[in-house]
Order: sequence, then structure tokens, then C-alpha cells
Amino acid sequence: MNKIYNPKREDWEELLKRPTQTVSDIESTVNKIFTEVQGFGDAILLKYTQEFDGVALDAIQVTENEIRQAAASVSTELKNAIAAAKQNIEVFHKAQKTEKVEVETAPGVLCWQEKRPIQKVGLYIPGGSAPLFSTILMLAVPANIAGCTEVVLCTPPNHEGKIHPAILYTAALCGVTQIFKIGGIQAIAGMTFGTESIPQVYKIFGPGNQYVTVAKQIATKHGVAIDMPAGPSELLVMADDSANASFVAADLLSQAEHGVDSQVILVSTSRNIIDEVEKEIEKQIAQLPRKNIAEKAIANSRLIYITEIQTAIDLINEYSPEHYILCVGNEDEYLNQIINDFIIKINK
Amino acid sequence: MNKIYNPKREDWEELLKRPTQTVSDIESTVNKIFTEVQGFGDAILLKYTQEFDGVALDAIQVTENEIRQAAASVSTELKNAIAAAKQNIEVFHKAQKTEKVEVETAPGVLCWQEKRPIQKVGLYIPGGSAPLFSTILMLAVPANIAGCTEVVLCTPPNHEGKIHPAILYTAALCGVTQIFKIGGIQAIAGMTFGTESIPQVYKIFGPGNQYVTVAKQIATKHGVAIDMPAGPSELLVMADDSANASFVAADLLSQAEHGVDSQVILVSTSRNIIDEVEKEIEKQIAQLPRKNIAEKAIANSRLIYITEIQTAIDLINEYSPEHYILCVGNEDEYLNQIINDFIIKINK
Repeated sequence: MNKIYNPKREDWEELLKRPTQTVSDIESTVNKIFTEVQGFGDAILLKYTQEFDGVALDAIQVTENEIRQAAASVSTELKNAIAAAKQNIEVFHKAQKTEKVEVETAPGVLCWQEKRPIQKVGLYIPGGSAPLFSTILMLAVPANIAGCTEVVLCTPPNHEGKIHPAILYTAALCGVTQIFKIGGIQAIAGMTFGTESIPQVYKIFGPGNQYVTVAKQIATKHGVAIDMPAGPSELLVMADDSANASFVAADLLSQAEHGVDSQVILVSTSRNIIDEVEKEIEKQIAQLPRKNIAEKAIANSRLIYITEIQTAIDLINEYSPEHYILCVGNEDEYLNQIINDFIIKINK
Repeated sequence: MNKIYNPKREDWEELLKRPTQTVSDIESTVNKIFTEVQGFGDAILLKYTQEFDGVALDAIQVTENEIRQAAASVSTELKNAIAAAKQNIEVFHKAQKTEKVEVETAPGVLCWQEKRPIQKVGLYIPGGSAPLFSTILMLAVPANIAGCTEVVLCTPPNHEGKIHPAILYTAALCGVTQIFKIGGIQAIAGMTFGTESIPQVYKIFGPGNQYVTVAKQIATKHGVAIDMPAGPSELLVMADDSANASFVAADLLSQAEHGVDSQVILVSTSRNIIDEVEKEIEKQIAQLPRKNIAEKAIANSRLIYITEIQTAIDLINEYSPEHYILCVGNEDEYLNQIINDFIIKINK
């Protein structure tokens, strides 16, 4: 891993560069596929699925029968784990529901604000190397609590034209109404315009590689809303002397193994922690089933030592990671100065 | 005005077409100006201000002295009206503040969701034919309640290089921290990249013509968030037999006079109301100070008769107007079936 000590402010931009192509590099490919999907629908989805996923599908939509078979093949242990996660996510999102806000600003002038479910939403679940049923839980559970009536899911098939059983089981459990074996740019295009099989949706949620991310951004030009440009996955861990190096290494590896274009960064005010985490990563990575992926992502990653806490906070805000883990004694000092949307975890 | 009776469903798309160019028509202009502003900063802002607004500015930023002079020239009557509006808007937005949501999903696992102000926000206020100080109130008041620390405002200058005094007075009153005499695509580019004068912001708010709207959409590709693509202005009024035709006409004209590319639509289950509103529009438009603008917008507009309420609701959802006014006896039937983000007003 690259170790950097007290980088100069003028070098931050280069140092924090994400290992992705820019929108403009990918945009022409996205525009081409969007135009084709708008014009030719399912036929072109099948063509691209053959080209990109290496499988000639007969049908795009997952059948009831496939869902039943999948449910039968998921172990009871995994089902229990999924049920526990679902329960936790439900508790969290139900607590976020708000009532209608009503105010009489002047006699007879009643103003109100209320939230309505979006009727038709699309969920994108990346496929390939790991079944992200956790993402289904985190997207479909709030969609159900909100009351969305149509929840469409697209995910790429494997070389046999199949979806991982845990994906199908979780999707059915969480009230997804239709599942399609389509991935990548063509899936986002399908949900943007609608095809013979895939319904057009009003908002698309979910992570993806850089092609999916740019496709989602282009979708907004065609009147579809998106949650956010969410990929590739990235994590920044801030750790001081109080941190457990083994936990920090495990956290970094948990994102690194997402994909070869994932990026993980450790920022620390402790030289000792940087050295310890480096050793722990070497030790733990050897045992990972997804070692090959994690190793490539780790090659893109950085261990950054910064003496001053305030400088570390400034650098973290400049980078604005998708996921941010705090392993520090004084987490409030860090939390109070966050200026962007972060998904935060505090490990004590 | 165009009167249409029970249009067929297959004609809705054409009928509800907005009088705007598409993103792709405008995109190359926007990309060119974005690249130039990114490279040349203030110098290019001054060049485009001369080209589009017809004035050679010495300085981009409005001075304290200009703000003081503006405040002195706004009438007490207008100041009182602005104060009353500010008070109403404050009451409404303060009621929307939410507390931190905390949930212990499992023993020792404390999850929370909280909202933080966005530190640096940019407000775009269209210029030209009418001083939209109402828009400043609606954007800057919530920014202050949220606690945004930097609130930057861009608005185009007139041919004398000046901003309407009511704009400057309202901006200062609502805690805008810096005001710049820059409009159009170049203003959005300036707030997206930052220049020598204009600070880079994290999110841009506010309406604009179609060039500004596309510029905001392109800004999202450069890492800046936007509120929504909000222009040109549009209004749909739904009126039944219980409506007051004079009020309906006044409401339609109030949006029509926003700009020549505004679009207003009346949908009614009453042929009588359609005829009455048409007459009222002819009568009222003759007396409008902004008659020339309203007349052009009215030419783009439609009076649509639909027999069945459910069909009317479907058509309204298909169009999804920015502003929606209900002048009906049974407003709940309409309200309950809204499926998109609408700004709604009920006139009884």
C-alpha cells in the first residue's frame, strides 16, 4: 500500500483522485446504448446481455418458479441472518417516517408539506462476483415502508443465465414486484424508457460500477430521478492511537473486496497505527476468498499519516467518502465538522 | 387559446409537450461555456456578461455601498410586504425542522440519522423582466433556518450593470453573504467551479430559463448538487363548475407573465368554465403591465375539457406540472391521487 506522510495541501487533489474514468469517457457509450434501448427495447437488451454477460437469455423476467427454487436452495442459517437484518433495517426506517406538517401562516391560509411514496421505483443490484442481497434489503425495505406500489429490480445474470438464489429470495421477501436479468448500462436504460418487459420507473436507486453510475446520471436528463451517483465503492477510515489495527484492516478489506475499482483510504494521526494496519492487511488479505479482487483494490489505496486532527478533518471533507468509519477516542470532534453526506460508522 | 375537448390518450404526449428545446440542443453551448469558465474564471464571466447582458462590468460582486443605496430606494410599503412574506415563509420552514432520529436496532448498536446544513449554497435568481425577490425569500429563508454558512447569489445585471433594488434589499435582509452580477449559463458555471470572485458551492438552487436549467443539470456531472430542473415556469389549473372563472384566469395569467416560454394549462370538467375563463383571460390580459409577455405564453397554452374526473387526474399526473392549482369542490379526490412532486394551491 502507498504510505504518505503529511501530504501538502496542493497535493491533496492528486492524492485523493478516484480510480475511475470521467463521465465524458463513458458518456458516448451510455448515450449509444440509451438510444438503442429507447428504439428497440427488449431485443437490444438481449443483445447486450449476450455481449456483456455472455449469455443468450430466452426471457428477461425472473419467473415465480425460479423464485420458488431459489428460496428452497437458500440455507436456513442464511435465511435467519437475512430476517435479522431485515428487522433491523425496518426499525431504523420506520423511525424516520414523518407526519404531515401543517401551518396556518395567516388566518385562513393553511400550508402543508407531506411526503408521498414514489409509485414506480427501480432498484439496481450489481452482479458478478458477490450477491449483494444486503443492498436489496437496504433499498426494498424503505421502499415498502414508504408505500411504493411498483418495485422493479434489475441485476445481471451469470453465464448460465441465472441470478444468485440469495438475491431472488431476498427480493421476494422484501416485496420486489418484478425481477429482471439485465445489468449494466442497458438495465438503467430499460428502467428509464421502459421496454416490452421492463416498466418505466420514476426513480432509480442502487450502486454499480462506473458505467452504471454514469448511466444513472444520464438517466436524469431523460426525466428519471436517481438516489445519487454511488459507485465504485469507497471507504475512508479515520483511526487514532486508540484504534484496534485488526478491526481497521478488516473494515478496509470489507470494502476493498467489493470490486477491483473500489478505493479504501486510511487516515491516521498515529504512525504506529499505519504500520500495524499495513501488517494486518497483509495478514488478513491472504485468507480472503476474494483475495484477488481485494489485492487490486488495495493497490489503488492509501495510508495517510497526518499530525494535526484539524488537517485530517479538512482532508476527509475534501475527499467526502461514500462510507466513513471513525475509530477514534474523540469522535464528536470529527462528527461535528462533517460537511457532506456520509454514511458513518463508529467503532469503539 | 387552444381549446381541446376530450383528447385521446395517444395524443396526450403531443398535447402536453413543453415549449422548450431539449437538453441535447443546448448542451454543447453549456459545455463550451463551462470549459471556458473553468479555465479562465472572472475574465470569461465578464466577456459573456457583455455579450448576453449587454454591459461591460468593472466588478462582478455587488458592494456594501450598492446594497445600502438599494435599501434606501425601496418603498416602505414594499419593505412591509417583504417582511410579511418573510415571516410567513419562516413559520412554514421552521415547522419542517426535524430532530435527530436515534434507534438502537440491537443492544449496543445505536443508529442515527441527522440533517446538517450544506455549508456553501448558491442561489440563482433570474433577471431581466421582473425582479424575483419572492424567489430569494423562498430560497434564502430556508437556507438560513437550516444554518448554511455561505449563501451566494447570482443574478444577471441590467444594461446599466445594475441589479433591481428590491433584489439587493431582500438578499441582504435574508442573510445572503455575497451577491454577484452574473446570470445565465456562466453564473451556474461560476458557482460550479469557483472563480477569482465567485466561491465554489456544493448545491445550486433556483429557477431559470431553459439555458440555466440545462446548465444546472450539467453541473451535476461536475460534482455539484441541484434542487431540481425548475424552468421554464409552468402551471396547471384544475377547475370544475364550482370554480370562479375570474380567479382561474388571474392564476393562469400570473404564471403566463413570468416569461414568453412559460406554459399554462387549464383542465376542466366543465365546458362552461372553459368558455368563461377564456373570456376572463382576454379581459384581464388587456390590463396587464406585462401584457406582451403574457400574450406570448398564452399562445403556447391550452384549455382542455375532460368529461371524466379520473381521466383528468391521469392527464395531470402524466404532465406533472411544476405548479398545480385546484379549484374544485372535491379536492381530496385529486390530492389523494397525486404521484409526483407538485407545488399545490387550493382556491376555495
